[in-house]
Amino acid sequence: MAASQKCLGKGSPAPGLVPKDHIRLYSMRFCPFAQRTRLVLNAKGIKHDIVNINLKNKPDWFLEKNPLGLVPTLETPSGQVIYESPITCEYLDEAYPEKKLLPSDPFERAQQKMLLEHFSKVIPYFYKIPVSKAKGEDVSALEAELKEKLAQFNEILVNKKTKFFGGDSITMIDYMMWPWFERMEMIDLKHCLDDTPRLNKWTEHMLEDPTVQATMFSTDTYKVFYKSYMEGNPDYDYGL
Amino acid sequence: MAASQKCLGKGSPAPGLVPKDHIRLYSMRFCPFAQRTRLVLNAKGIKHDIVNINLKNKPDWFLEKNPLGLVPTLETPSGQVIYESPITCEYLDEAYPEKKLLPSDPFERAQQKMLLEHFSKVIPYFYKIPVSKAKGEDVSALEAELKEKLAQFNEILVNKKTKFFGGDSITMIDYMMWPWFERMEMIDLKHCLDDTPRLNKWTEHMLEDPTVQATMFSTDTYKVFYKSYMEGNPDYDYGL
Repeated sequence: MAASQKCLGKGSPAPGLVPKDHIRLYSMRFCPFAQRTRLVLNAKGIKHDIVNINLKNKPDWFLEKNPLGLVPTLETPSGQVIYESPITCEYLDEAYPEKKLLPSDPFERAQQKMLLEHFSKVIPYFYKIPVSKAKGEDVSALEAELKEKLAQFNEILVNKKTKFFGGDSITMIDYMMWPWFERMEMIDLKHCLDDTPRLNKWTEHMLEDPTVQATMFSTDTYKVFYKSYMEGNPDYDYGL
Repeated sequence: MAASQKCLGKGSPAPGLVPKDHIRLYSMRFCPFAQRTRLVLNAKGIKHDIVNINLKNKPDWFLEKNPLGLVPTLETPSGQVIYESPITCEYLDEAYPEKKLLPSDPFERAQQKMLLEHFSKVIPYFYKIPVSKAKGEDVSALEAELKEKLAQFNEILVNKKTKFFGGDSITMIDYMMWPWFERMEMIDLKHCLDDTPRLNKWTEHMLEDPTVQATMFSTDTYKVFYKSYMEGNPDYDYGL
């Protein structure tokens, strides 16, 4: 599925047409937002190819497809273009009805969307804290805020008494939140899960999922990429 | 449908249970986000009651239902609570399948969601410009930015050659964007539509829609409310 192709930058030849029975994902191997879409493609067994984009030096043909230049971006064989990670994931779940990841009950669907909205307010901490730390600033207040937010997610699992956020099997919302948890060790924030045992247990259940295993990188790999990223020179092809 | 009930504040008695065949909307009469949900309730002919909330002085029973204290919030007879305006609207469209407002085609649905995401970046201008103007600042740069963004929406209609954003009949995306256009005269920004004739025409088509007519207020009413709001003392019950 070509997830291991080197990234394409400005001046690179445009990839061929999207094969008829495929969908194409424009991605960046280490991007957590694009990983959401990779998780959904994998979990649903959707035939796809992946074109990795050099986000520091985007090809013109990519900007023609999506002027915002964002990954993840999906492209269908007929040239339809879809972006924004939650929108790509919902699109895939609707366009490929086998193995639905979103529940069918309207209220349960709304619950997953509200949870995703809550989680969108957690994501900035995974950026602010390491950036602040790199500047030598005291991050204890930010970490306390993050812990408080994570405690709310822990509480949801405690109340639901389920392994995952949508029940005892993995569903869309788990995949939407996972990429940032996968990277917590990379940014030395794993200790923020010390007081949230149910959430910590959730990360263990997630790590047992074949789709999570198929799309993840090791912390060592992330650390090398992250270092290059923080230095302003991201090594998008690291490990290839 | 009780949209004209005075707002309830701290210390007010909690409203009774949600009637069995109804859904309840917690709202504020002049809130554009809550208007989205009012538009959908009205367009789909859903039996509902409306409880208006004093947003400056929220009742404890409301904060128990939704700790974020936001309107719009929906409550079902079984006590399910749904908030965030796009989530409430999608919930209503899914839970009440008659007269669907979102298209059934997955790509068209994704298009509406992407458009909504774009529009969410326009909304801040409707707040920033009047606030800046009230401070006596020069808003010409902000207005130019707003016009540029509105030109993109005009362009979409030009390319689609349709009356509305989802086709020749009104759909979800039109209702999601409408409340801010309804308020453009209130904040003296109507002239920002001068160079976008198709978008201007769209506002005229919107004004012919019975649902829009049923949920709107006059610019005079908005102006009085807005003045009180800007002075820090919103007159939530103005006109009742």
